[in-house]
Amino acid sequence: MTYTYEYSRPNLAVDCVVFGLDEPNSLKVMLIRRSLPPFQDQWALPGGFVRVDESVDAAARRELQEETGLKDVFLEQLYTFGLLDRDPRERVVTIAYYALVNLQEHLIQAATDASEAGWFSITQLPPLAFDHNEIIAVAIARLKGKVRYEPIGFELLPKKFTLSQLQTLYETVLGMPLDKRNFRKKILKMGLLIELDETQTEVAHRAARLYQFDESTYRQLKEKGFNFEL
Amino acid sequence: MTYTYEYSRPNLAVDCVVFGLDEPNSLKVMLIRRSLPPFQDQWALPGGFVRVDESVDAAARRELQEETGLKDVFLEQLYTFGLLDRDPRERVVTIAYYALVNLQEHLIQAATDASEAGWFSITQLPPLAFDHNEIIAVAIARLKGKVRYEPIGFELLPKKFTLSQLQTLYETVLGMPLDKRNFRKKILKMGLLIELDETQTEVAHRAARLYQFDESTYRQLKEKGFNFEL
Repeated sequence: MTYTYEYSRPNLAVDCVVFGLDEPNSLKVMLIRRSLPPFQDQWALPGGFVRVDESVDAAARRELQEETGLKDVFLEQLYTFGLLDRDPRERVVTIAYYALVNLQEHLIQAATDASEAGWFSITQLPPLAFDHNEIIAVAIARLKGKVRYEPIGFELLPKKFTLSQLQTLYETVLGMPLDKRNFRKKILKMGLLIELDETQTEVAHRAARLYQFDESTYRQLKEKGFNFEL
Repeated sequence: MTYTYEYSRPNLAVDCVVFGLDEPNSLKVMLIRRSLPPFQDQWALPGGFVRVDESVDAAARRELQEETGLKDVFLEQLYTFGLLDRDPRERVVTIAYYALVNLQEHLIQAATDASEAGWFSITQLPPLAFDHNEIIAVAIARLKGKVRYEPIGFELLPKKFTLSQLQTLYETVLGMPLDKRNFRKKILKMGLLIELDETQTEVAHRAARLYQFDESTYRQLKEKGFNFEL
């Protein structure tokens, strides 16, 4: 069975930039090794073609799960890359998505047309297939931009975290050190952290207080146009 | 001549949300009246299908000029709308763009498959073809979000403007009044305005000082990650 159109059509794809935070302070992105041409055996973002009977969001979720086993991840649309000659096979426009996941809670496995899957530090990426290095650069820029005016990245941390872990996350994403007292003052002032009656366990140093992200308060404040500027 | 593919493909389109600022304090968006089905004679965003031999950005620029005569407008990609059944004809995924233009400097004319083109206040939009009301809502939300952390909208003003005109612009986009003294203090502190040795002409009230946007300084500060939070 084939499909015929009056005009030549670009093919439509989706690609997923999935970020994870690894100790110590390393922001990682998930890559798969391609088992098929083009760029066979090269590392690339998980992704594939959009089916005519699925939304583009659904296509991104499907491809991510098919190639890495990851599901129930909140994928946010990043940008659509539509230059000519992105793909040696034919004209392909790709809609890029990105997500933040807790690296510890999400084990990944290579599946279908990926021979291997793994986490790579954004500071040590291999040369990637297609324009995927550029797509990741755009995703990192978006992430840096977002943390400046929105409390994000909580997905990257364990459910319960210390303020030091949270600061490390921000410093890792922003790529610069932050003043400890200033950071704590501002982040607590947002009223988005639930202070738990628990402290760390199994730590050499003095056990620090654990916190949790108050998502419902976050949503309420966001609807009111609250300014989260850090 | 026809084109045959192994798999059914979504068709790919672009749509343009062009904002203009009109006295008094009215944010407008440009619409065209469709002369062809579907939604014949209904108002819609300027747009059309992406050709296989042009980038998606080029397609947006081309469609905007073909349907409204507007050219040399800075179009920024907004979001890609990829739900099923957006278009009664077939599966169409559209990449939406938005732009800010000076309404006075850009006269528009209907062209090709638009029978009419005009500016509509965002507070009084007619029911639009396809999901174009939703696309405009997303564009307005983006605009509101952006003015909170970036000095934008200068494109909407004349080259030389007063601080009152600038405040009116921000109030119009944000949809809320701003404290005059506070606004002026913050906006001047950004160091992005060039105070001109000129004042308004032909005004009944006391002629106010004219300013110009310092674009090169803006780019320099932005590269340094300067925080423009208003």
